[in-house]
Amino acid sequence: MWIERLDASHALAYRELMLEAYDRHPQAFTSSVRERAAMPLSWWESRLTGKLDVVFGAFEAGRLAGIVGLAFEPREKARHKTTLFGMYVSAEFRQHGLGRQLVQAALAEAQTHPTLKVIQLTVTAGNEPAFNLYQRCGFIQFGLEPLAVRVGEDYFDKIHMWREL
Amino acid sequence: MWIERLDASHALAYRELMLEAYDRHPQAFTSSVRERAAMPLSWWESRLTGKLDVVFGAFEAGRLAGIVGLAFEPREKARHKTTLFGMYVSAEFRQHGLGRQLVQAALAEAQTHPTLKVIQLTVTAGNEPAFNLYQRCGFIQFGLEPLAVRVGEDYFDKIHMWREL
Repeated sequence: MWIERLDASHALAYRELMLEAYDRHPQAFTSSVRERAAMPLSWWESRLTGKLDVVFGAFEAGRLAGIVGLAFEPREKARHKTTLFGMYVSAEFRQHGLGRQLVQAALAEAQTHPTLKVIQLTVTAGNEPAFNLYQRCGFIQFGLEPLAVRVGEDYFDKIHMWREL
Repeated sequence: MWIERLDASHALAYRELMLEAYDRHPQAFTSSVRERAAMPLSWWESRLTGKLDVVFGAFEAGRLAGIVGLAFEPREKARHKTTLFGMYVSAEFRQHGLGRQLVQAALAEAQTHPTLKVIQLTVTAGNEPAFNLYQRCGFIQFGLEPLAVRVGEDYFDKIHMWREL
């Protein structure tokens, strides 16, 4: 297993894994598989090469098995904050500790940016494995957003978490 | 006094009032006066004419005295939510009830959109007049974001609020 920063050459594999995530866990992500499947490959490339995003991938046996992103803030009064987003480990690669290693990779990257002081994320209420993982990695809940995500006729709350870097 | 929806013809007055707000109350807004003063007038026009924003102005004696915006969400799983932003009443027009009328105008507009179910906002911790106004208008705190805004060397927390429409 290794973790590396993704670039444009990983766009196809990144697209495939994110669409799997959106499709299998619609309540966990604000993006929908339908919206994202319609995006051209150049859109996925730009996610991997944009100045305000960094995406890491975990590879097992040469295959992309898990992903996590960091989004930076353009405005100067928010530039001390970064957001962990798009965290996913493919079902067949769970229970290998990949999730924890991806979060640690994101934290290590954030800590190389001297202007960053805070990292935030959201997790859908009820997703105990993810919530527990983030807690073990030092994240603390600072809010519970009601009706944060709508999937069909159902609404799900989101827990907002943060930690200092 | 009247309240109306702003359009491109109000861009100069809107720019002037927002720059006053950013300059006098830097801890209350994530945008900074320096960043926004550098924007061309077309940027302010686009704030007033974009598909995902609606801005209302309160006029006193024909002058723009207060403003409030509503931002809509492009992604389908978040399209039931709107965010109240950029609320400001010029110092010389305070204590006239303009703030409350602006919030009511934003709520009334939101209620005309049948897909909307939730309205959210943030307010800097310690801004008691604004927090109390939002509470009187039915908003409830759902989070307290630590170190949300940096102004020079100082950090300010932000209260996250919501109400159903």
